[in-house]
Amino acid sequence: MKGLLHIDAGKTKDKIINFIRRYVLELNRDGALVGLSGGLDSCLVLRLCVEALGSKNVRAIIIPERDSDPSHIRDARRFAELLSVKNTVKSISPFLWWLGAYRLYPPAFLFSKKTQARFVKNRSGKISKKLGKDIFMANLENEKDCELCRGKAFYRIKHRLRSSILFYYSELNNLLLAGTSNKSEILTGFFVKYGDNIADIMPISFLYKTQVRALARSMDIGNNIIDKAPSPDLIPGVEDEDMLGLTYEKLDPILAGIEHSCDDLQIIEDYGVSQKEVERVKKLMSVSEYLRAGPVNLF
Amino acid sequence: MKGLLHIDAGKTKDKIINFIRRYVLELNRDGALVGLSGGLDSCLVLRLCVEALGSKNVRAIIIPERDSDPSHIRDARRFAELLSVKNTVKSISPFLWWLGAYRLYPPAFLFSKKTQARFVKNRSGKISKKLGKDIFMANLENEKDCELCRGKAFYRIKHRLRSSILFYYSELNNLLLAGTSNKSEILTGFFVKYGDNIADIMPISFLYKTQVRALARSMDIGNNIIDKAPSPDLIPGVEDEDMLGLTYEKLDPILAGIEHSCDDLQIIEDYGVSQKEVERVKKLMSVSEYLRAGPVNLF
Repeated sequence: MKGLLHIDAGKTKDKIINFIRRYVLELNRDGALVGLSGGLDSCLVLRLCVEALGSKNVRAIIIPERDSDPSHIRDARRFAELLSVKNTVKSISPFLWWLGAYRLYPPAFLFSKKTQARFVKNRSGKISKKLGKDIFMANLENEKDCELCRGKAFYRIKHRLRSSILFYYSELNNLLLAGTSNKSEILTGFFVKYGDNIADIMPISFLYKTQVRALARSMDIGNNIIDKAPSPDLIPGVEDEDMLGLTYEKLDPILAGIEHSCDDLQIIEDYGVSQKEVERVKKLMSVSEYLRAGPVNLF
Repeated sequence: MKGLLHIDAGKTKDKIINFIRRYVLELNRDGALVGLSGGLDSCLVLRLCVEALGSKNVRAIIIPERDSDPSHIRDARRFAELLSVKNTVKSISPFLWWLGAYRLYPPAFLFSKKTQARFVKNRSGKISKKLGKDIFMANLENEKDCELCRGKAFYRIKHRLRSSILFYYSELNNLLLAGTSNKSEILTGFFVKYGDNIADIMPISFLYKTQVRALARSMDIGNNIIDKAPSPDLIPGVEDEDMLGLTYEKLDPILAGIEHSCDDLQIIEDYGVSQKEVERVKKLMSVSEYLRAGPVNLF
């Protein structure tokens, strides 16, 4: 099963570029719009849109808030400017204050991001201990816990509000909203339902995170962006791999192995992962199923 | 085919109540939350949630904005109070000013709602004439037109923002978000994608609008709510039946006839609709298909 994650970067790039062009035409749009966080996925999608449509027909919207890492925002602006893409920065902090979301975790801005991250890790550890499972799994399984609910409301509104604003700008300017979800996060439920998993099209949703990285390396994406620790940038100190419970280097072959109906033992042998890690991924996939579906209907 | 729209109100009510109870348990929630507009659908859903869970376990959020009809908001508050349901009014006008949405149609608040409605109808008529099709169809078909795009951005952000806020309150209070979509609007694309078509569960999405009305009549919903002209209450003067191009009394039997694979002629004969009306409904159903699907993925 080795080689399951291998991609032909050139062909993959062409395929995505054709896809973007096709849907701009099909939906009668004048170009594309990308919500840029400064992370790998959104930078790659922006780059692909520019290749497909030319920088004049692409627009980036950067939507920071109080808890965003300033270095990501800086990276996002620099990257858009490097590609000569018109970019708009619109902070949602005023909205989050108005809604009362920031009052849920009020003193955060008085401390450094590092201190905040330590505080979050400490609290998460305590909740996990109380619930007998890690916080990401507890969230997916809808564990009943006040602090967990508060946390969910706190981080999810950020992405939902972002997507509302992205659709607003895309409709106003008749642009196609290109989403930035990748296959690893979709399959494990590592996204905000109706937040970062919605857009007009999803150009890289067929690629696992490590494949996204490989494609980015083959294009003009800087190493500062490719090599930064993947993070949803919603709560200080919360990074992808901490939440998922394993690195993408382990997660992706397990996901690909399961996709290709490989035997657990074969996955374990070929990629040096443990039985426990395979079980974790299977569990994440099954408990996150409702997140990939729409609302429940009654028939 | 007559009788296709007949429902047994008692059985239908019980079915919905069980559905609500089941998902509150399944998703580990402490109750339910409904976004209340003062219209028929949301009032009925609130009533059903109260029957299922008791008024203490239900909460209503009323989210008006500058262009909302004050009488709807009043109806919403009264209805929640009548059911002894805790209700919160949270206007999104400050957000819409901040985003710049209201600047798209700035002088509106200087005129009466009636004058605004006349203005909107006049403009819509002109755009329709220019495009050679009515404005609702033009929207569904992604017609390229500046004023149409501005209009889309203007009304869609309202519902998207509402759903973001509803999810926020539902997560914060560990409540199940009960959506209010009905089958007539879902099948004709008469909703805002990722706006009013998202929620945790959709208790009345299996009912056509006229069935919703029949169920409401059998329960304690006032005639002031049942008999008001259905409207999305997004833009003054824009009502459901004007946009759809036919009344629900004609739309629903056509939809039900198509659902049951009836012959066009039979639908026309049994319900006194025209061939043109049947064609219109079929077209609405087919051009709105992308609205019922998620983002387009590349495989």
